Amino acid sequence: MDKRNRVLIDGTVIKRSDIRYTPAGTPVLEIVITHLSEQTEAGKHRKVECEVAMMALGDIAARLAPIQIGQRLASKGFIAAKSNRYRHELVLHLEEFELLN
Amino acid sequence: MDKRNRVLIDGTVIKRSDIRYTPAGTPVLEIVITHLSEQTEAGKHRKVECEVAMMALGDIAARLAPIQIGQRLASKGFIAAKSNRYRHELVLHLEEFELLN
Repeated sequence: MDKRNRVLIDGTVIKRSDIRYTPAGTPVLEIVITHLSEQTEAGKHRKVECEVAMMALGDIAARLAPIQIGQRLASKGFIAAKSNRYRHELVLHLEEFELLN
Repeated sequence: MDKRNRVLIDGTVIKRSDIRYTPAGTPVLEIVITHLSEQTEAGKHRKVECEVAMMALGDIAARLAPIQIGQRLASKGFIAAKSNRYRHELVLHLEEFELLN
């Protein structure tokens, strides 16, 4: 069993689902952010862009529910496969977030 | 411009490329790890699995070159899109690693 699985990433919301509920009544919300930053790699500055699919379950989904397209957020969570079939397509499962605007 | 983009994840190497060199002579190595851990989400323990594509450039690629399929490593880096076309397919760009076996 592996130990560490931690992601910290900021970005702007470009997609969001409606809130839905599992059969057990747990709220679920899915968003996609776009991330744009500068990083250093092999001693050189480079631009980094990506889109990150995120999922929020339970209390955090309820708190995230009002989020709007265009809002920026700082997020923290763990990554998991989108499904058993698409094990390399990653979804960030939110544990904490903070709105940045 | 976004600020944070940091991933810490452990896993087992399941694929690796041969080392290759950019036109400027920078070594490049690509690996894929499989990650298996337990996380807590919405108050419940859950199993988490995923495969993470990783890229190492420069000095870190040279240090990673001897890595073997089956070896476990702790990794730290930033995530970027695999390409402009596949902005949601994420690649972890390694900044630090430590072999765990």
